[in-house]
Amino acid sequence: MKYEGFTTFKVEQDEAIMTVTFDFGSVNVQGQEMLSDLNSLAMRLERDRETKVVIFQSANPEIWVCHYDTELLKDMSDEAVSREDAQLLDLQLVCERISKVPQATIAKLEGFARGGGHELALALDMRFAARGKYKFMQMEVGMGILPCGGGASRMARQTGLGKALEIILSAQDYDADDAERLGTINKALNPDEIGEYVNNLAKRISQFPAESINACKQMVYESIDQPIKEALKSEAYWLYQATSKTPALKRFQIADEQGLEHDIANQRNWSNLVMDVQNIN
Amino acid sequence: MKYEGFTTFKVEQDEAIMTVTFDFGSVNVQGQEMLSDLNSLAMRLERDRETKVVIFQSANPEIWVCHYDTELLKDMSDEAVSREDAQLLDLQLVCERISKVPQATIAKLEGFARGGGHELALALDMRFAARGKYKFMQMEVGMGILPCGGGASRMARQTGLGKALEIILSAQDYDADDAERLGTINKALNPDEIGEYVNNLAKRISQFPAESINACKQMVYESIDQPIKEALKSEAYWLYQATSKTPALKRFQIADEQGLEHDIANQRNWSNLVMDVQNIN
Amino acid sequence: MKYEGFTTFKVEQDEAIMTVTFDFGSVNVQGQEMLSDLNSLAMRLERDRETKVVIFQSANPEIWVCHYDTELLKDMSDEAVSREDAQLLDLQLVCERISKVPQATIAKLEGFARGGGHELALALDMRFAARGKYKFMQMEVGMGILPCGGGASRMARQTGLGKALEIILSAQDYDADDAERLGTINKALNPDEIGEYVNNLAKRISQFPAESINACKQMVYESIDQPIKEALKSEAYWLYQATSKTPALKRFQIADEQGLEHDIANQRNWSNLVMDVQNIN
Repeated sequence: MKYEGFTTFKVEQDEAIMTVTFDFGSVNVQGQEMLSDLNSLAMRLERDRETKVVIFQSANPEIWVCHYDTELLKDMSDEAVSREDAQLLDLQLVCERISKVPQATIAKLEGFARGGGHELALALDMRFAARGKYKFMQMEVGMGILPCGGGASRMARQTGLGKALEIILSAQDYDADDAERLGTINKALNPDEIGEYVNNLAKRISQFPAESINACKQMVYESIDQPIKEALKSEAYWLYQATSKTPALKRFQIADEQGLEHDIANQRNWSNLVMDVQNIN
Repeated sequence: MKYEGFTTFKVEQDEAIMTVTFDFGSVNVQGQEMLSDLNSLAMRLERDRETKVVIFQSANPEIWVCHYDTELLKDMSDEAVSREDAQLLDLQLVCERISKVPQATIAKLEGFARGGGHELALALDMRFAARGKYKFMQMEVGMGILPCGGGASRMARQTGLGKALEIILSAQDYDADDAERLGTINKALNPDEIGEYVNNLAKRISQFPAESINACKQMVYESIDQPIKEALKSEAYWLYQATSKTPALKRFQIADEQGLEHDIANQRNWSNLVMDVQNIN
Repeated sequence: MKYEGFTTFKVEQDEAIMTVTFDFGSVNVQGQEMLSDLNSLAMRLERDRETKVVIFQSANPEIWVCHYDTELLKDMSDEAVSREDAQLLDLQLVCERISKVPQATIAKLEGFARGGGHELALALDMRFAARGKYKFMQMEVGMGILPCGGGASRMARQTGLGKALEIILSAQDYDADDAERLGTINKALNPDEIGEYVNNLAKRISQFPAESINACKQMVYESIDQPIKEALKSEAYWLYQATSKTPALKRFQIADEQGLEHDIANQRNWSNLVMDVQNIN
C-alpha cells in the first residue's frame, strides 16, 4: 500500500505503526485539501492488512488541527431541509469513515484542537493530551451553526449528556485536565511523557493480530448503538469473524502445549504472556 | 412574554438571562402547585424567542427543591398495568417538557435535591453544585416505588450503568464532591464561587444566537438516543434548521471581511473572537 | 430456597444478604464448572423472594475470578458465521442471566479479574475494588479473539467509547485507581476499608422492599437501551409493577400518619427516615 501524494500531512511507517503528521499552512486548517487527504487515507487503510495502529499528531507546535475552513461556510445554504432530505456533510462523512478504519487510531494532542479539528479527534479511537499545550473548544454555537462533523453525537457518547451540553453550549476553551475531567480524552499527560506513553501503547497494540484489533474495535462501536441483546449478538458475530481469519488462537494453543501452561495458570504473568505468545509461529 | 402568576417560584429577567428562584413553603415541596407552575413556565419558554438561558436556584438556604409531595403518593394506584397501558406520570411529563425547552438550562444547586427534586435537576441541561451545601438522594427504593420523573433514565445517561444502580439502589445521601465523581453534576464548586461561575457561563451563552443554542441542545439529546448513522443525519437536519433562521453566520462572514481574518487564523484568539463577532450587525 | 451443590463457590446467607465466595482450584478458573454453577445460582435467585442483595467475593487472596478456561477455546470453531447465525456463547448467556437477577449484586474485588473474570464483574450491578490488590485486564485481542461475555458491550456502557477502546485494544493491566478513573468500577477503596464499605451498602439495600429493588434495577438497565420517550414508559411500567406488589408504600403512609410528617418535611432526616420506615408493620 502506497501512502503518497498527500498535501496536508506526512505519513511515516514503522512496521505496523503508521504516524500521520499534520503540516499544512500556518494553522493546519481543515479545508477541502485536508478532507480529501483524510478520505484518501481512509480508503487505503481500509484495504491495508499490514498497518495495525495509526497515530495522528501535528508538526505545528501550537495547533493539532484547526477548525473547519470558514471560507467553506460562506457558501453554505441557508435553506432548512426536512429530516428525510438532510444530506450528510463532507466533514461528517470523512470523520465517520476515519472512525471505522480497521486499525486502532490514536490522537496525540499537543496543541489546540477546535471546531472540526476537535471533531476529528473525537472520531479517533483514543485521545491523549499534553498538559499546558492542549486546548479544545467547540465554537459553532457562536457562529449560528452546530458542530457538524459528528462532534455533537460523539461527545455525548464520551462524556454523558450534561457535560456534552456544557461544552457545546458554552463555546469556551478547556485544557487537558478539564478534558480528562469531562471525559473527552482518555488521559492528560505531561508534555515530556506523552510521546513515550503513546509510543508504548501503539507498540503494544501493533503486536496483536490485525483481525482481532478490527473485531474488537467494530464491536465496541456497535455495542453502544444497540440494546444489550443485540449487542451480544454482534459480539458473537465479530468473534467468529476474528477467529476465522487469524492464526493467533492456534499460536496460543501451541504456546500452551510448549509449556506455557504454568504462566497461563499464573495470573501474574498475563501481561507479559500475551506479548510472548505473539512471537510463536 | 409575561412570566407572572407563579406560586412556587419567582421569575426575574436580565436581558436574555432568566432566573427562576424556587420559594414555596418551608421545603419547596414538589406538589401539584410546582408541577403546574413548571408546566406553565415550559409552555411560555417554548414560545419565547428572547430568553436564551434559564438558571434555576432556590431562595431556601438549605433546600433547592424537595421531593415529590408524599400526599400525592397516597392516592397512587396499586394495580399493575401492561407495558402498553403504562401512562406517563405528571412528574415525567413536566420534567421531559422542561428538559427540551429551546433555552439552555442550568441548575444552580446550593441546597438539598432529593427524589423528584433531584430528578428535576437531572432534566436540566447542566448542573453545578456548592460544596458543603448540596446533597442529593433518590430515596424511592425505600418507599416501595422507583424514581419516576425520568430520574432512572436520565441518571444512566450521565453516569453509566454501575453508578446509576448504586445511587438508585442505595437511597443514600451524596455530597457535591461525590456527585462530581459519580457524574451526576458538571462540577462541584466552593459556595463562594458558584454564583460567579454560573453567572459567567450564563452570560457567555446568552450572547449566542437563540436558534443555534436550540439546535445544539436538541441535537445532543437526540444523538444519544440513536445509532451514530441516524445521529449524524440529525446533526445535518439541525444544522440547516439553525442556519435557515439565524443571521449569525452572515455576521461572521462580515467580521471576516472586516479584517478579523487574522484573528480567525490565529487559534489563540478564538475564545474572544466568538464573543466579539456577536456584536457586529 | 436451597443453595447447595456448587463446586466453584460457597454460598452463605445472612438474612436477606447472600455472599458468594469463589473458591475453585488454584486460580478460580472460569470453566464449565463455574458457568454451570453460576447458571444454577441465577435460576434459584430468579425464584428467591427472600434474598435482596448478593455479594460476590473470592477466598483466593490474589485472584477474584480468573479468565475463561483456555482449554475450552481450543475446541472453538474457526468458521465465520453470518450475523443471523451468530449464536450467543455460554459465557454471554450466563453473564446476561446473572446481570438481570432480581437482587442487587455487588462485586467485591480484592484480587485479579481478567478476561472472562472481568466480564463477570461487569455483569454485576456495582463494583468496588481494593487498592494494591485489584487488577483487571481484557487480554482477548492478543489471543485473536475478543471479550465475548458481554465485556465489550458492557464496558462501553460504563466508560464511554474512548476508554472502552483503550482497555480492550491495549490488553494491559489496570489497577484500582485506574479503574476508578476509567469508570469500570464504582469506587476504589483501601484494602482495610472495602469490607466494611460493602457490608454497610449491602445491609442498607437489604432493608428495602424486594419488588422495589428489582423494579429500580430492571428500569436502569432498560433505560440505557431505549430512546428517552420509551425509557419513560418503562419507568411507569416498573413503578406500577413495584407498587402492585409491595406493602412498603402503604407502610410509608402509616409512618406518615403516625407522626413522622415532621421528619418527612425535614429534608435533613431523609437518610435515616427511609431506614426507620422499613421497621413499621
